[in-house]
Amino acid sequence: MIPWNYTQFKQIAQNILEDNRKWSAQGKVADYIPELKKGDPNAMALVLASRDGSLVVGDCDRLFTLQSISKILTLMIALEDQGPAKVFFHVGKEPTGDPFNSIAKLETTATARPLNPMINAGAIAVCSLIKGKNSDDKIKRVLEFISMVVEREVTINAEVYQSEKETGHRNRALAYFMKDTEVLEGDVEDVLDLYFKQCAIEVSCEELAKIGLFIAKKGELTNGRRMVQRDTVRLVTTFMVTCGMYNASGEFAINAGIPAKSGVSGAIVAAVPNYLGIGTYGPALDEKGNSISGVHMLADLADQLGLSIF
Amino acid sequence: MIPWNYTQFKQIAQNILEDNRKWSAQGKVADYIPELKKGDPNAMALVLASRDGSLVVGDCDRLFTLQSISKILTLMIALEDQGPAKVFFHVGKEPTGDPFNSIAKLETTATARPLNPMINAGAIAVCSLIKGKNSDDKIKRVLEFISMVVEREVTINAEVYQSEKETGHRNRALAYFMKDTEVLEGDVEDVLDLYFKQCAIEVSCEELAKIGLFIAKKGELTNGRRMVQRDTVRLVTTFMVTCGMYNASGEFAINAGIPAKSGVSGAIVAAVPNYLGIGTYGPALDEKGNSISGVHMLADLADQLGLSIF
Amino acid sequence: MIPWNYTQFKQIAQNILEDNRKWSAQGKVADYIPELKKGDPNAMALVLASRDGSLVVGDCDRLFTLQSISKILTLMIALEDQGPAKVFFHVGKEPTGDPFNSIAKLETTATARPLNPMINAGAIAVCSLIKGKNSDDKIKRVLEFISMVVEREVTINAEVYQSEKETGHRNRALAYFMKDTEVLEGDVEDVLDLYFKQCAIEVSCEELAKIGLFIAKKGELTNGRRMVQRDTVRLVTTFMVTCGMYNASGEFAINAGIPAKSGVSGAIVAAVPNYLGIGTYGPALDEKGNSISGVHMLADLADQLGLSIF
Amino acid sequence: MIPWNYTQFKQIAQNILEDNRKWSAQGKVADYIPELKKGDPNAMALVLASRDGSLVVGDCDRLFTLQSISKILTLMIALEDQGPAKVFFHVGKEPTGDPFNSIAKLETTATARPLNPMINAGAIAVCSLIKGKNSDDKIKRVLEFISMVVEREVTINAEVYQSEKETGHRNRALAYFMKDTEVLEGDVEDVLDLYFKQCAIEVSCEELAKIGLFIAKKGELTNGRRMVQRDTVRLVTTFMVTCGMYNASGEFAINAGIPAKSGVSGAIVAAVPNYLGIGTYGPALDEKGNSISGVHMLADLADQLGLSIF
Repeated sequence: MIPWNYTQFKQIAQNILEDNRKWSAQGKVADYIPELKKGDPNAMALVLASRDGSLVVGDCDRLFTLQSISKILTLMIALEDQGPAKVFFHVGKEPTGDPFNSIAKLETTATARPLNPMINAGAIAVCSLIKGKNSDDKIKRVLEFISMVVEREVTINAEVYQSEKETGHRNRALAYFMKDTEVLEGDVEDVLDLYFKQCAIEVSCEELAKIGLFIAKKGELTNGRRMVQRDTVRLVTTFMVTCGMYNASGEFAINAGIPAKSGVSGAIVAAVPNYLGIGTYGPALDEKGNSISGVHMLADLADQLGLSIF
Repeated sequence: MIPWNYTQFKQIAQNILEDNRKWSAQGKVADYIPELKKGDPNAMALVLASRDGSLVVGDCDRLFTLQSISKILTLMIALEDQGPAKVFFHVGKEPTGDPFNSIAKLETTATARPLNPMINAGAIAVCSLIKGKNSDDKIKRVLEFISMVVEREVTINAEVYQSEKETGHRNRALAYFMKDTEVLEGDVEDVLDLYFKQCAIEVSCEELAKIGLFIAKKGELTNGRRMVQRDTVRLVTTFMVTCGMYNASGEFAINAGIPAKSGVSGAIVAAVPNYLGIGTYGPALDEKGNSISGVHMLADLADQLGLSIF
Repeated sequence: MIPWNYTQFKQIAQNILEDNRKWSAQGKVADYIPELKKGDPNAMALVLASRDGSLVVGDCDRLFTLQSISKILTLMIALEDQGPAKVFFHVGKEPTGDPFNSIAKLETTATARPLNPMINAGAIAVCSLIKGKNSDDKIKRVLEFISMVVEREVTINAEVYQSEKETGHRNRALAYFMKDTEVLEGDVEDVLDLYFKQCAIEVSCEELAKIGLFIAKKGELTNGRRMVQRDTVRLVTTFMVTCGMYNASGEFAINAGIPAKSGVSGAIVAAVPNYLGIGTYGPALDEKGNSISGVHMLADLADQLGLSIF
Repeated sequence: MIPWNYTQFKQIAQNILEDNRKWSAQGKVADYIPELKKGDPNAMALVLASRDGSLVVGDCDRLFTLQSISKILTLMIALEDQGPAKVFFHVGKEPTGDPFNSIAKLETTATARPLNPMINAGAIAVCSLIKGKNSDDKIKRVLEFISMVVEREVTINAEVYQSEKETGHRNRALAYFMKDTEVLEGDVEDVLDLYFKQCAIEVSCEELAKIGLFIAKKGELTNGRRMVQRDTVRLVTTFMVTCGMYNASGEFAINAGIPAKSGVSGAIVAAVPNYLGIGTYGPALDEKGNSISGVHMLADLADQLGLSIF
């Protein structure tokens, strides 16, 4: 399936990157927080990581923040910390046709639970389930976990964190609403602090691919050490398919068919079960909030290399 | 219309109060904040205030908090401070079929404005329009205004205020949501502080009737001094009819037909244009959040004295 | 209040009509059914009817269809036929912030009842409550009732009726939805047939004012004969205030303060309790579906003659 | 992965069926149409079909109607008839958190399109895209298609069809709503007739498994003949994962991870890509409308045989 001739494979990746460069002009860099606006709309990167090493094309030396990609990582930690029963008492398992920051369903759904852990409300609820005495304590655990996976000590971009904390009114609304309906436990501002921090963790595109590979390998590090249970990763992989790409997840499943999660910084992580981790970067977003070049590169990759799980 | 024979009139009021005593057993004292739970479910009071004096029956020596009744008073101040054009740029004029604390319409309505100033979201938006450098400054003006109307220096019930401030998660959600959509200006917590304070202002049932008379007289004090413009009061009176009784306003307009505003403390203020101010008290609430005995006393009064404006 | 010097009064009405002629250019004739498109956007008429006779200015010889104005007339008949308890088992009493043809609330409201009889869903439910063995039988009763009120044998505009019947897909959706939730009894197509027919009844602007006067007089004909109970008319008048002008009812109550009901043909009927019936005509509609010149003429009339009930 | 020792495999299937027999008592046979009520709540069947033959356990001689399972078959035909571009102009690709028969999103979503072809609104829209001059013509093509796949001439259960046609008010509401918003083309009653007919097509559990195998083999018949394009089946398979099990699809993807589609008759068809078709039958439904024993049998199968695609 994968032409594991490195030179040939690199050429395919290079072509896919160049072929999709045109899309960036049709996208728009996220502007809802001042720091994100600084993203270079023309930047593009594509990294494929296999057990045997990485293949890198494009602007891969840049760091960017994880944003919503952090949701799959904290979900893993929460599942390991609390077990699925407790986690899914606070957050549902169903995809939703609503935008990622929507609040209406929290009011109109009988259970009041956020529909899934990939929408903002759900991810905030997941934050409240990470063990630790406060957000400082908890983010330390999150950083350590990600650092193990990417084999570098990752840190938080302080400007992005501050920016999100100051302007995150919608997320604050979601959190206080869930506090009111008793979906959220603990101190609201402390939970939000963790959420804003995890969104601001910085990685490179190559590190993104390593996260993808970690998922593809069902929770094993490159060195073979198991970090989380297989079932935890299977759960997260399922959410990546049904709701990883905001409310374009259904379309992405059809067009690419690779479990993936995107962030508004323009990053996408994807995992071809058992084979491959993929990272893409391109800050110009489509109207659903996904990297416009990233979505197209992944569809082309899936098509040319037969990576769809369907 | 009104049998302005005091003895006879008092007898009618007394009978109406006694006839409706039975309803309290079918209602429920508000329990969403600890302090409100302390209300005596069997307490009942009815006061009618005309230009010539007040008629009092029932437990009229108790003080209770204004809660949502404060919404009509701060709306008057905001209208005088900013003029209708600015006020209605931030809040709509239309009744809604949704509950008073609903958030869904803020998301699904194109303008993002709260539908009217009588629902919580609208009243919070109105708070942000009161002039003053912060909530302390603003609440001072609100207290002075109400003190002038009721001819006593009114104050805030500190326990109720603290209680609402600590547990007002839903109102916080509404406020942050409106901050996000730029409906709300200024510091969210400061605006909320004013909102929680105004809800906790204490009055007696007789003072409630004075507020009603002030509205019936289109903004004139008992001494004839004009406090606010006629148009301001006409506007507020209209909102009392279309949305003063939460989402039972339509039914109340049919059954009683008197402009009125209720609060979850069990108070209702009503104003028969040009004639009469009415205050009722009874902490047992119906399922829509209106005083169950109050609603029935007002319907009987309207029926027996022909007070409906329709 | 009313300068019952006919010449002087006529001058006022004439001035108001001319002053508001400019608005028509900013409105738009309804185009959702082919027949309505034929309305002359520049036509304008204003009629005031008192116990002593009518005052007519503008293009008053035209006939137009009642459209939604029919809702208040069939509501009267249903209330007389079944009593309020049965009617309000099938339809609510509360205003709504949703558009007149909205279906979402039928699904999301616990009771499944349409919120009030002035929105399409509510009016269709009311149709099912009119006594008669089928729509032919029922429309005959409706026509007789209206003919008595306007003192002319009114008829249905067959083209408009056919047009609405063929293209009334949204109303059909509302009706079948209510059939599913058992709000609507009887044969759906028969109920809809009555609804489409009642909308297509033709009157003149002078006849509209007579309908308004009939309401102002609480159900008495010009000759003093009582047609419906006072309580029935009081109920209907209340709905005119809280939901008579689609989802601009709140704003109209503030600006004009006269109980009124509009139709998409460009007609508005208004009733100043005990005094005056008013008809306006002007097919150019504002974005909420109300006659743009009509709304402004009524606000000016209310302002200049002090007709607001608030 | 699969212990292709027939005896051993049959034992596993038999055990799974018996282990899950207990669930039926906790479910409820569909009662929204009289004919479905006749289903035996204790009946259970499980069939696995591979390229080499079928394995059958339980009550497999019964026939039952396809109900919503027909949605994946008509979607295939519509995709082949019109191509994906035209199909997805009329219906979306995104999963939804709303119930299968919900109408609210049709009103509140900007595009007015049903969110996906697995909810009723979407499936009705798909019906309008099947080629043929009327519903008789179209259903003939649908029957022929299914007959080829299951290798028997399938027919319609006339009682179920009549029953659904007479009581399908909700589906009628959905269809007329979409006619109004121009999502649905053609004659509404004719489109609905096809929809009611396709739901009433009868198959056995073994035939269900053959349909599953046909999907697992990406559109090839047992004899190797290709009936539809691979891409068509890949698309349909994706929808089975993201929205095949009503609004329990996310949970089923986590618990079983096999592409599947259920019907309210108690049937579920599942397809393990390239390997296996599965049919389950058990008319007792859980609260989401899925066969309660079927859902559990599939989760156990996936677990014991490692069939999850995630």
